[in-house]
Amino acid sequence: MSMHKVIYDTDPGVDDAMALLFQVRHPEIELLGITSVFGNATIEDTTRNALFLAGRFAPHVPIARGAATPLVREAPGPLPFIHGNNGVGDIELPAGTDPAAFGATLDPRPAHRFIIDTVRANPGEVTLLAVGPMTNLALALAEDPEIAKLVKQVVIMGGAFGIHGTLGNVSPAAEANIFNDPHAADLVFGATWPLTAVGLDVTQLTIMSAGYLKALRDEAGADGQFVWEVSRVYHDFHLSSEGLDGIYVHDSSAVAFLVRPDLYTVRGGPVRVLTEGIAIGQTIQKPSTMPVPAPEWDTRPSQSVCIAADYAGVLDLYRATLLAAG
Amino acid sequence: MSMHKVIYDTDPGVDDAMALLFQVRHPEIELLGITSVFGNATIEDTTRNALFLAGRFAPHVPIARGAATPLVREAPGPLPFIHGNNGVGDIELPAGTDPAAFGATLDPRPAHRFIIDTVRANPGEVTLLAVGPMTNLALALAEDPEIAKLVKQVVIMGGAFGIHGTLGNVSPAAEANIFNDPHAADLVFGATWPLTAVGLDVTQLTIMSAGYLKALRDEAGADGQFVWEVSRVYHDFHLSSEGLDGIYVHDSSAVAFLVRPDLYTVRGGPVRVLTEGIAIGQTIQKPSTMPVPAPEWDTRPSQSVCIAADYAGVLDLYRATLLAAG
Repeated sequence: MSMHKVIYDTDPGVDDAMALLFQVRHPEIELLGITSVFGNATIEDTTRNALFLAGRFAPHVPIARGAATPLVREAPGPLPFIHGNNGVGDIELPAGTDPAAFGATLDPRPAHRFIIDTVRANPGEVTLLAVGPMTNLALALAEDPEIAKLVKQVVIMGGAFGIHGTLGNVSPAAEANIFNDPHAADLVFGATWPLTAVGLDVTQLTIMSAGYLKALRDEAGADGQFVWEVSRVYHDFHLSSEGLDGIYVHDSSAVAFLVRPDLYTVRGGPVRVLTEGIAIGQTIQKPSTMPVPAPEWDTRPSQSVCIAADYAGVLDLYRATLLAAG
Repeated sequence: MSMHKVIYDTDPGVDDAMALLFQVRHPEIELLGITSVFGNATIEDTTRNALFLAGRFAPHVPIARGAATPLVREAPGPLPFIHGNNGVGDIELPAGTDPAAFGATLDPRPAHRFIIDTVRANPGEVTLLAVGPMTNLALALAEDPEIAKLVKQVVIMGGAFGIHGTLGNVSPAAEANIFNDPHAADLVFGATWPLTAVGLDVTQLTIMSAGYLKALRDEAGADGQFVWEVSRVYHDFHLSSEGLDGIYVHDSSAVAFLVRPDLYTVRGGPVRVLTEGIAIGQTIQKPSTMPVPAPEWDTRPSQSVCIAADYAGVLDLYRATLLAAG
């Protein structure tokens, strides 16, 4: 069994919470820390939610508070219709923001410094699993560019590459995590660390149906009950906006890729993110097989983009992980 | 049998020549005129090639010379490695540029004026079949915006919409025809005429193999011999650049859509073209099913984009059309 030492960079977020549970319950993942970032909610709310989630599921894992705003553009507005007013589907939370009250530990360092220090303390061993805007990772790179060589790999949930007809979800050209900080994402894709993007191309084809969620609720004990409760607002959003009686598996797909890359097909090639214009936030890969020169891409490292998956296998993996831990 | 009255706007171009032959031989197409445009070669060469092709295959169809340059950006360089030094695969051409020597007629009007006059003379009846940069169509719209209501439909070969993993062929984000005049294309997609884009999403999946081309050469008489000869440089380009022993069916796919739309699946929604930045020339559709607001798209008319086809059916149609006419 190979253990993955993971820093989970997250903006919880309903699917972020489900993906944290997935990591905590998976026997091959060792969580070194959780770093919060604005995104699905404000940094105050995502940090509070991270403290709550850690306190409940991973009390020994430290939380480091991260960026409140994108590098350049303005912070996005709240998304109560997707993630609830509190960012985690309006489940009941303890009052206040005192880490001790959650049974959690708040690290004094900012997230990007926590990332740098932890990577340097574990050279070649740390996976950065980033499922929110890429701001903390970009700040870490800016402060200590050498970490790019010291990180084992980066796995992000983000982007949409036009593999199956979708270029975005918050605009016709952009996926939410990248849209929320395109400048940071362009830096993260351009760094010389091995990165895999798990984007809408696969996450929107990985769907937990209403029946799947109900079965999880009934069969996976307290974890299943938690997944059910945290996903009610999120489920309603999918139903009302897209007519989908189920939920897309965004962030947990990045976890699935980490532990079972054999479930995914990837395409290699450098990636650029558009940082201006009407398609701001779009991710564009130059496939390594493309014969024409493209100077804006050709100077950058090749990264991996997920273009297909064993979708049923991913769903089975999530369920089996929760059931085995129950 | 319904007859399609067509103005063929073209930059011949090897596949332009093959698509002209397809139209001339199809019993349901009446060619009202051919308008030339820069693109696969200079306007001098594409106009001469149009005269040659008309003289050989459609001597009663007038040619009108069109735009030499894009609306805003600089004209592209020549592509001798794709379309040959003369633009039509280096087949032998008569010397000079005298229309009479080609047995063809050069209309005195510029292409965009020819388009306006012909549309106004046949209100509601004319299909604009445009397979080069969209400059002539944009100039016609600018000079006489009302033609948008008088055209029956516009069918273009152009764009790439990220349906099957491809966003472009001349850059990671742009298809050649749109790249060559993105400003014109954005105007053409935004006009209130019914438009269908037949882009790389389907044309790169419609492939005339070496065997298909040989069979055409051997079975379709002089037409088959012409297709074979005109496509030698083009075939070599596909082999050397992509390892493809065959050719993509770009322009003829637009003809196929016109006469057999049942062979195609389309997606509706407004389309924008990026006119600046590293993805200049990219075509981005907001699918009509997308629930989020997108002001840059929402004020524009819905257009159709081909997302799938009966590829074998398209190939059969081309062959059957030439054989039936032989």
